[in-house]
Amino acid sequence: MQSSDSQSNDEANLQLNPDGSLRHLLTLKGLDKSLLLELLDDAEQYLSPEGMLPVRSNALAGRTVANLFFEPSTRTRASFDLAGKRLGADVLNLDVNTLSRKKGESILDTIYTLEAMAVDIMVVRDASTGVPAYIARNVKDFVSILNAGESDASHPTQGLLDLLTIRQRKGGFENLTVAIVGDIQHSRVARSAAYGLRTLGVGELRLVSPPAMAPDDPELSFATIVDNLDEGIRDADVVMALRIQRERIGNLDGIPNIDEYFASFGISNERMRLAKPDAIVMHPGPMNRGIEIESALADGAQSVITQQVTNGVAVRMAILVRVAASMDAR
Amino acid sequence: MQSSDSQSNDEANLQLNPDGSLRHLLTLKGLDKSLLLELLDDAEQYLSPEGMLPVRSNALAGRTVANLFFEPSTRTRASFDLAGKRLGADVLNLDVNTLSRKKGESILDTIYTLEAMAVDIMVVRDASTGVPAYIARNVKDFVSILNAGESDASHPTQGLLDLLTIRQRKGGFENLTVAIVGDIQHSRVARSAAYGLRTLGVGELRLVSPPAMAPDDPELSFATIVDNLDEGIRDADVVMALRIQRERIGNLDGIPNIDEYFASFGISNERMRLAKPDAIVMHPGPMNRGIEIESALADGAQSVITQQVTNGVAVRMAILVRVAASMDAR
Amino acid sequence: MQSSDSQSNDEANLQLNPDGSLRHLLTLKGLDKSLLLELLDDAEQYLSPEGMLPVRSNALAGRTVANLFFEPSTRTRASFDLAGKRLGADVLNLDVNTLSRKKGESILDTIYTLEAMAVDIMVVRDASTGVPAYIARNVKDFVSILNAGESDASHPTQGLLDLLTIRQRKGGFENLTVAIVGDIQHSRVARSAAYGLRTLGVGELRLVSPPAMAPDDPELSFATIVDNLDEGIRDADVVMALRIQRERIGNLDGIPNIDEYFASFGISNERMRLAKPDAIVMHPGPMNRGIEIESALADGAQSVITQQVTNGVAVRMAILVRVAASMDAR
Repeated sequence: MQSSDSQSNDEANLQLNPDGSLRHLLTLKGLDKSLLLELLDDAEQYLSPEGMLPVRSNALAGRTVANLFFEPSTRTRASFDLAGKRLGADVLNLDVNTLSRKKGESILDTIYTLEAMAVDIMVVRDASTGVPAYIARNVKDFVSILNAGESDASHPTQGLLDLLTIRQRKGGFENLTVAIVGDIQHSRVARSAAYGLRTLGVGELRLVSPPAMAPDDPELSFATIVDNLDEGIRDADVVMALRIQRERIGNLDGIPNIDEYFASFGISNERMRLAKPDAIVMHPGPMNRGIEIESALADGAQSVITQQVTNGVAVRMAILVRVAASMDAR
Repeated sequence: MQSSDSQSNDEANLQLNPDGSLRHLLTLKGLDKSLLLELLDDAEQYLSPEGMLPVRSNALAGRTVANLFFEPSTRTRASFDLAGKRLGADVLNLDVNTLSRKKGESILDTIYTLEAMAVDIMVVRDASTGVPAYIARNVKDFVSILNAGESDASHPTQGLLDLLTIRQRKGGFENLTVAIVGDIQHSRVARSAAYGLRTLGVGELRLVSPPAMAPDDPELSFATIVDNLDEGIRDADVVMALRIQRERIGNLDGIPNIDEYFASFGISNERMRLAKPDAIVMHPGPMNRGIEIESALADGAQSVITQQVTNGVAVRMAILVRVAASMDAR
Repeated sequence: MQSSDSQSNDEANLQLNPDGSLRHLLTLKGLDKSLLLELLDDAEQYLSPEGMLPVRSNALAGRTVANLFFEPSTRTRASFDLAGKRLGADVLNLDVNTLSRKKGESILDTIYTLEAMAVDIMVVRDASTGVPAYIARNVKDFVSILNAGESDASHPTQGLLDLLTIRQRKGGFENLTVAIVGDIQHSRVARSAAYGLRTLGVGELRLVSPPAMAPDDPELSFATIVDNLDEGIRDADVVMALRIQRERIGNLDGIPNIDEYFASFGISNERMRLAKPDAIVMHPGPMNRGIEIESALADGAQSVITQQVTNGVAVRMAILVRVAASMDAR
């Protein structure tokens, strides 16, 4: 544990400039409350009053952003691509298939190459834990690394968009009960949301899953671990369903198939009657409708799922501008 | 038939705003003559006097266009990409392989995601009939859907570029004889050209094919169905060859192989002597030289094939500007 | 030989406009000294005084550049992409997989299509010798073709960036001994560097390889052919390692495996003691660390490898501007 904690602290420190401003975004763990709130405030500025159309700027004109996705992604890649373009950046999308095919080049050599091409910001998604931090430790002063999804470990821009969505609808965090439901153990989405919610002083966080999918991360011990959906949802203000990987269901004790999973851990309109009447429903997408979430609920009045997507672009614009702003001062 | 007609009318109405202006482009069927002519006039404005270099504008600055190609495409995708960029739009190209790999997300959820990212115009190519209209029925008011090729059913921007090319070279449609030659039954290109030509009052449309590839669409009954190439071409002003799918040839009565297909239905310089002396030759590309069209003819003086490609960019620029212009008014 | 030389001269002439200015870039062979030096001077203008951040311009605003890579590439494609964007061009990246899948269209028809879309500059990488020149012979006056890697034959922008890097560090070429080490026979990188170095009057060029990988090109007979690494490196000012294709090693006389290759022809810190004390080490990337180059050397003080990458963007910007400048005058 000690070594793991040290590493976490190291990673948290790594993402800050000496003056405390944000240089990389690797994890929400260790970012303090005031910085998190500032980032949410920044993101609000990129939403129009109607909360929909993005406000553009030229804050990144002359900057280059490279999207380096070693894992396939449609929505997060598109979100970063649009965020960069709407800020006037040059955006370079690197083909993940081409990259993986080119055997024999280390990931650091790929990074050094982009660095030598004067890429200012690298957005990295990778299937292995530790890759974004490893890269961040090795780049030159002028480069910022943004984690766009890291194995099961971290997905900080997703965490920020979840926090922003909750604050928009609920006004704050202190008195809220938030339930995250699904395969907590393998979810970078759950982890990033949990770290952020802890820092912002959430009332209660419940992590709801079949026992085999319960978290084994001591960092999450502040949360209430629940293995019964009714109990997990009861009186909640926020219910977040996680995407389940179908192939994991077959191996679960007492959950032999998809129908059984939906019956036990699927969020439905009926289930939501246990939550507060004004509770909101979240999902990071892409959804397996009818498995972890009922289709009618996803499209219903309590759902804030499309707002999450919109907020994702705003959050990514805010992060891009933040790290770019600190470049000249480094 | 009734239900099919109702559906067609529905689709035609779906693409118009209440004030009659163009909101989506799904099919040329049901678009009236004045609107078609306006679109052709618009497109002319994006061609330089020499007919080659595109005239640029910033009409789409601040707008986002997503190219969503569920079927592979080089030329149509490139044409829309350049049309968007030359109008100052942000263009998002989504990787069809990545999309198809991501199992379990419905096409509507992909669309809702792009909508939530404030994508204004979605350019959709799909192998299934009805997908563009299905999407158009489900998007928010601010979104426009452009059909970039829909199974065998419809390819309206191709139809428009064909109409524009014919008008440029022939001045009008009323006194023309147009022959479309090839696999009419499976051709969205033939269908879209036919609907447009009917609306613009073409003198005579001949659909020329082996009997097994003759159209079975009652909407095309206004045309003359011909199963003999000499007869089909005789005195024609316009001869349009269609791309043949090679694997379909083996199954045709009396046409055992590619050589036989060329001998019976290939357009050649010799064959073109039957047409009017100033007849033009068209092809939507990509060409199978030596199969549906003789190579020397494709590169000869009667060929307008590269002009069709140029007109394709102009037509797509015109459509993008049209639908964007109607957005603020919706 | 005669026919090969004639073809080479033809290719060299093909890339110049009647007034001697650059129209295409196909090969460094036949480009004269003053033009090569002008291109290097141009490239310097796109480097900031620190040699790192690129200087931007709008010299290509309104121009369209298409990257047409029939062979996969990450770094060269990214370099051209960024070069185009930093000059304000519209950049079209064509998917090599989609292109290759679309059977039955000739490469010239793909080119004619892009030409008809008013693409001004086509950047072509192809696995077959002669393809860039073949395309250049067939395009309209307003189009320029840039060779981005052609089989084993030519990689002229790589050659230019190598020349620029050497000039930056060594001030000139006349008194230099340059050693290129590796599979000379199959290396377009070695060939392009060699042609450029010959024109610029390099003191001595040594081509160092196992006998089975020695050059068989009579154009390279001006160089010293060496089959012993110590001898090849001794007193050199510049040592350039080439990327080796691992699968070629198994077939070499006396070099049964990778360890043996490194022992015989790998450049290492120890080996570099034979060169001049201020010798520089180059590599075109991507590197096989531990095979053709020792990892510590690649990251050490003598290495100019990342500077080569930076210079690559500057060289490509210079070439893009050069050929665009000649367009209006054609």
